[in-house]
Amino acid sequence: MKKLESAGHSIYFETELAPLMKVIEAEKYSKIFVFADTHTSELCLPLFREMMDDFNGFDLIETDPGEENKNIDFCIGIWKTLLDFGADRKCLMVNLGGGVITDMGGFVASTYKRGIDFINIPTTLLSQVDASVGGKTGIDVDNVKNMVGTFTLPQSVFIETKFLKTLPQRELLSGFAEMIKHGLIVDRTYYNDLKSSNYLQISAQAIYRSVEIKNEVVTEDPHEKGLRKILNYGHTIGHAVETYSLINDTQPLTHGEAIAVGMICEAFLSSNNNTLSADDLKDITDYISTLYPAYRIKEDSFKQLLEFMQSDKKNENGQIMFSLLSTIGKCDYNCRVSEKDILESFAYFNRIYS
Amino acid sequence: MKKLESAGHSIYFETELAPLMKVIEAEKYSKIFVFADTHTSELCLPLFREMMDDFNGFDLIETDPGEENKNIDFCIGIWKTLLDFGADRKCLMVNLGGGVITDMGGFVASTYKRGIDFINIPTTLLSQVDASVGGKTGIDVDNVKNMVGTFTLPQSVFIETKFLKTLPQRELLSGFAEMIKHGLIVDRTYYNDLKSSNYLQISAQAIYRSVEIKNEVVTEDPHEKGLRKILNYGHTIGHAVETYSLINDTQPLTHGEAIAVGMICEAFLSSNNNTLSADDLKDITDYISTLYPAYRIKEDSFKQLLEFMQSDKKNENGQIMFSLLSTIGKCDYNCRVSEKDILESFAYFNRIYS
Repeated sequence: MKKLESAGHSIYFETELAPLMKVIEAEKYSKIFVFADTHTSELCLPLFREMMDDFNGFDLIETDPGEENKNIDFCIGIWKTLLDFGADRKCLMVNLGGGVITDMGGFVASTYKRGIDFINIPTTLLSQVDASVGGKTGIDVDNVKNMVGTFTLPQSVFIETKFLKTLPQRELLSGFAEMIKHGLIVDRTYYNDLKSSNYLQISAQAIYRSVEIKNEVVTEDPHEKGLRKILNYGHTIGHAVETYSLINDTQPLTHGEAIAVGMICEAFLSSNNNTLSADDLKDITDYISTLYPAYRIKEDSFKQLLEFMQSDKKNENGQIMFSLLSTIGKCDYNCRVSEKDILESFAYFNRIYS
Repeated sequence: MKKLESAGHSIYFETELAPLMKVIEAEKYSKIFVFADTHTSELCLPLFREMMDDFNGFDLIETDPGEENKNIDFCIGIWKTLLDFGADRKCLMVNLGGGVITDMGGFVASTYKRGIDFINIPTTLLSQVDASVGGKTGIDVDNVKNMVGTFTLPQSVFIETKFLKTLPQRELLSGFAEMIKHGLIVDRTYYNDLKSSNYLQISAQAIYRSVEIKNEVVTEDPHEKGLRKILNYGHTIGHAVETYSLINDTQPLTHGEAIAVGMICEAFLSSNNNTLSADDLKDITDYISTLYPAYRIKEDSFKQLLEFMQSDKKNENGQIMFSLLSTIGKCDYNCRVSEKDILESFAYFNRIYS
């Protein structure tokens, strides 16, 4: 059992939710809402109840699962539900689920009556190592990911690996991409540890290290004015590929699969436009392309991908900005890359599988 | 020319917008958007341009005027417009207008890509003395006022009495209600000064004093955990009356007219449930009822008014909470009042005009 102190809130590890009951009692909340999707309410809510000694003093707000439901219409529905339940400013929202639930639940809570407390219990590997820390909330508008949101810290975060047992392998692999990223941008030793581990048997220790890395970065730069941008490594191209896939592929990529594509492309850019060595580029390319399923960035998607990148939140003055590795374990931000180089990185990626 | 330093931002008085150009240059914004309704873009935008030496380096985002348009649908429209214009995180939104524009523009800016800078140029007396300070942004959902919003400070605020010349008398009277409130809750001398003044010729000095009072209160308690609630004097009943009137009256009350009703009712409650003297109650009742048009709280609206009050943001655990005067110039908060007493205050109010 461990606890990480982040800016203004605590992140609890493997506590079987014991401190949660204490928080609820200490803060004297007027009402407690558990926000989950139909999927997590079926699979994770029983585990939640079990750890909470059959605690029943909450109302459940359910939503449909999936990124396509992380939109403003669902938010309006939840705001109205809170109002119908007589939720005042002293109520608490417990977000139980993956990134969609913690992102959208956090946004709803941070704006309902100008803000109520919320607690995140991430139940996927992806949300445990990524969405749980840093205070980003958000929803998609017009398929643009997190176009609207706030920076608001949860009251606390609870990470329980027990929930991961409910996950399909593909979801574990998705979250694992963010862990690889943490190694690549900050800690070569951790990256090498991950390489020799099995993503189906992730240790609580590895999750802790990922959260620790993210926490260090976001505490230094909470509002992404500078350093925090290194967490976007793999995400400039990755997000565009993810958005494209969500719209066009019959079996869309998971977030992590898209970020895996992005990390390889941006490793190429790191070598081309920054100081990443050819050996490191080969190391990253070989490892990620072996671990993740083959993919092809279609030629006729190139234009649209560039358009998606144009609306990336890191951009300034119309210039697409990248976070690029200088070596494995170190990352720079605000790197300018030309469209020509981006297209070359797509070609590099496609050559892996040709 | 004066400048008030508020928490993290400056409030400029009667500067002819001179510092605005400097802020724009210093912050190197990627784009500038002026947000206005069709009404203020006709009446106030020419004055804005004049003071800004015909500055033209902005895109205008226009909306329809009126509280009924301060809703989520308009927000979605503005978010999408920003995206269409290629607005990145380094752009600036200048909100030029009354409270609807500064509330909604502030909400849109505080959530677009998790927050862009915004500057408020309040053009009505109401928004100058009330909405300009304190960092509250908000929109209405299902006719519930400011059900959704954030606490986000503007980059800066500019108060120019020149804009007030565009206002009809009724709008001046509306804003004047908030000034009276500032006197009632904090400063008896200021209240007496207002009583002997003419609301059609409000001095910049009086506006400055109101902003100063509000600034002192919100700086001490930015997130309305305690003291800030005194600013809600007159607003628990006033907001309910305003909401009811907006839905039911062919000529709805202005905000200030509704708050005038609320201040009289809550003066009665201050006398009944707190220590306000009979003389002070008479003073407040006589002054406000003479200044503001006659109104009747209809018997068949009582139930609905109580329901509206139930969803007031200050409430905790289902109990309607009031901010009540202990004397003219002093206000307590978190005062519990029974429904019976609220109904008696309605009866007291209606007797004035019978």
